[in-house]
Amino acid sequence: MGGFKHLVVVKFKEDVVVEAILKGMEKLASEVDAVKSFEWGQDIESPEMLRQGYTHAFLMTFEKKEDYTAFTSHPSHIEFSATFVTAIDKFVVLDFPSVLAKSPA
Amino acid sequence: MGGFKHLVVVKFKEDVVVEAILKGMEKLASEVDAVKSFEWGQDIESPEMLRQGYTHAFLMTFEKKEDYTAFTSHPSHIEFSATFVTAIDKFVVLDFPSVLAKSPA
Repeated sequence: MGGFKHLVVVKFKEDVVVEAILKGMEKLASEVDAVKSFEWGQDIESPEMLRQGYTHAFLMTFEKKEDYTAFTSHPSHIEFSATFVTAIDKFVVLDFPSVLAKSPA
Repeated sequence: MGGFKHLVVVKFKEDVVVEAILKGMEKLASEVDAVKSFEWGQDIESPEMLRQGYTHAFLMTFEKKEDYTAFTSHPSHIEFSATFVTAIDKFVVLDFPSVLAKSPA
């Protein structure tokens, strides 16, 4: 894939309807052209020792860092983020140019 | 991409030669066929409040969960992991079937 990645790993608060958050994030990714791809996953099976309480990973890919920077100030992102932060117990965010060390065949 | 993902987010110990670890991980990914793709990145620019001290993300993709499970018991993985755990200060590991919500064009 390469590109510039926006990775968000979270633990949601207990009373949160995760499906509604996911729908909001999929809508956000779909309506902002700068988001080239978006994938996510849930892990509630791995040992707590590995997950450290985190349950979801979200990964957005942009063509370049400037596109990600523009995305952060997009009205849809600002609106979604305001809701998102109220739903999470803890999070880790990493933004980085991806090094594709082994390409998909 | 889809597939089954093995995501590792880490903060290395201060005296670690990260380049050596990266080389070891790239070697591991390249020599195990079950690893379909491997990408990683470093973020030392984002605010500490977002990164929570973490600096690197590693993402391996497998065709299916069973391939990942087999990978965890592969001798090369076991050998590498033994070295890897001594090099990290803290980590989060999430393993999940990836939901590709927006595909690369």
